[in-house]
Amino acid sequence: MSEIRQNVITKDWVIFAPERAKRPHEFVDTQPLPPLPVYRANCPFCRGNEYLDNTTETLRLGGDNWQVRVVHNKFPALRPIGERIRSGGGIYHSVTGFGYHEVIIEHPEHNRHFALFSVSEVENILTAYLLRYRQILADHRIETIVIFKNHGSKAGTSLEHPHSQLAGLPIVPFHLRMRIDVAIRYFDDNGQCLFCDTIADEIEKEKRIITLSHHFVAFIPYAALSPFHIWIFPRRHFSCFSNIQPAELTDLALVLQEVLARLYWGLGNPDYNFILRSSPTGERDTEYYHWYISIVPRVNRTAGFELGTGMYINTSLPEDSAQFLRDVVIPPFP
Amino acid sequence: MSEIRQNVITKDWVIFAPERAKRPHEFVDTQPLPPLPVYRANCPFCRGNEYLDNTTETLRLGGDNWQVRVVHNKFPALRPIGERIRSGGGIYHSVTGFGYHEVIIEHPEHNRHFALFSVSEVENILTAYLLRYRQILADHRIETIVIFKNHGSKAGTSLEHPHSQLAGLPIVPFHLRMRIDVAIRYFDDNGQCLFCDTIADEIEKEKRIITLSHHFVAFIPYAALSPFHIWIFPRRHFSCFSNIQPAELTDLALVLQEVLARLYWGLGNPDYNFILRSSPTGERDTEYYHWYISIVPRVNRTAGFELGTGMYINTSLPEDSAQFLRDVVIPPFP
Repeated sequence: MSEIRQNVITKDWVIFAPERAKRPHEFVDTQPLPPLPVYRANCPFCRGNEYLDNTTETLRLGGDNWQVRVVHNKFPALRPIGERIRSGGGIYHSVTGFGYHEVIIEHPEHNRHFALFSVSEVENILTAYLLRYRQILADHRIETIVIFKNHGSKAGTSLEHPHSQLAGLPIVPFHLRMRIDVAIRYFDDNGQCLFCDTIADEIEKEKRIITLSHHFVAFIPYAALSPFHIWIFPRRHFSCFSNIQPAELTDLALVLQEVLARLYWGLGNPDYNFILRSSPTGERDTEYYHWYISIVPRVNRTAGFELGTGMYINTSLPEDSAQFLRDVVIPPFP
Repeated sequence: MSEIRQNVITKDWVIFAPERAKRPHEFVDTQPLPPLPVYRANCPFCRGNEYLDNTTETLRLGGDNWQVRVVHNKFPALRPIGERIRSGGGIYHSVTGFGYHEVIIEHPEHNRHFALFSVSEVENILTAYLLRYRQILADHRIETIVIFKNHGSKAGTSLEHPHSQLAGLPIVPFHLRMRIDVAIRYFDDNGQCLFCDTIADEIEKEKRIITLSHHFVAFIPYAALSPFHIWIFPRRHFSCFSNIQPAELTDLALVLQEVLARLYWGLGNPDYNFILRSSPTGERDTEYYHWYISIVPRVNRTAGFELGTGMYINTSLPEDSAQFLRDVVIPPFP
């Protein structure tokens, strides 16, 4: 008989059906992609080609010999132009498309993978995230800032050059409102942060942990919505990514790199999304919300059942996937 | 500048960016699929092959010369065996996988399309939905019943034979809980059903209507989450599909067939999902909830921006798509 688990943070229900279960190694992608060149003459993100892209640069780490650059998205979903104006209300509520949509160019070279960056390269990228996050936080028209990365076509990107994105939204997306709502109810009922309680319990139980450092913990949630879905949480309670301390940032680089390397070597460079889920800008110092990074490998496609019912089917047991990832042998850095 | 609209029923925010907008005809799929045979010897859903499938039949309309059959799913996500037992609570909440997962075989022939069925064939299918819905409603362990159809690989199906599915769930999915919650708040604030207010206003405004009959209305919502996303609502207020009257069922067959035919002829047989969103079984006679059918053509892929931010980008303006669908010329029935 299958077991249905509730993800207490997202409130989603996930079916773990033994008949449909796969062993972790069955998710391994055995068809590696063709290798990419280190440089492409027509790629505006390659070092030396900055002139190809006439979008505004908002940050550069390292001068001419830059390591990380941040630019406005060439085809932005939102623009930092004009004003944020809400109109309508009632059943026709709209807002002008004011906002930020930036691209973080993670590395000057075309053919690099986040999973294979050195820890100091990852730290540079996280520093760029933090600097842009703090800058945009100063704009009071922005209610939510999301940093995310799409790796591979199944994750929704077609660009080869390693990059991530930052979106400054003039609203709070409903799914974040709901997560906040759940967190508030839990805090009101229990006097504790739901995330802190979950973290403490996962660390004690051990079986779903992927890696544990001084400041961070990475684990597969009890009711992971999809195979190898991973959460990385700071162990200290704080709501907003912008309040991260320098020692924590260094530690996060280590943990994020390790987790992505385990996925890369364990599953054969899977497509994935990662999303940094920070608090709404107006709620950045609360007792109830706790920021985190969610990593979603795209190792199986969404079934029709999920689209229809709103329940999830996970074909991999979190305890098994966590064990598998812990056992991955990461080759020494070249 | 782009416009962000809020879908007041789902509470999702949708970006309509003029730079990314496509004209309706750009969504037309010009690569028709190869034709299918009327019968496949190894298809358990073709008439005459019932013996190939050793799953339980739960309904048959028409005896040996059946028009519609309903069977248990061969690979069920949930089974009507054992008991529904909730355990845990707190941060580890689980339920046994008790439930129903059935397949509605819509037609004895292998190569038929829902969009090309006659109205009486559609009425047969809707009758099968209703009979199974009412039967499963009598099982008090079931909290939600969802009927859905996945057409084509982008919609999550690999089976060729025309079929839809019914799932009887032992829980209420979170997204339905949220929709109910939104509807209750609106009712409490306004003393009206949110859906009835929306329907009345859309009928008055006309510009997003696809078709209007005596008992039903089909329109593209003001903040449609994706291109050609369509809602079909009964004009009479009632919460649960099981309370549909015979004249309404006949009328729904007409409207559903027309809408799917407009999509088929207008967009070149797009992949799509349709979902019948009825009330939770315990709330089937409320003033706040109103059942409906949601049709989601899979004419563009989910962008990384949506996966990351939780906001939607719709590349087609609802008013334009509705106009396009109204103008589709449906060839006479052969």
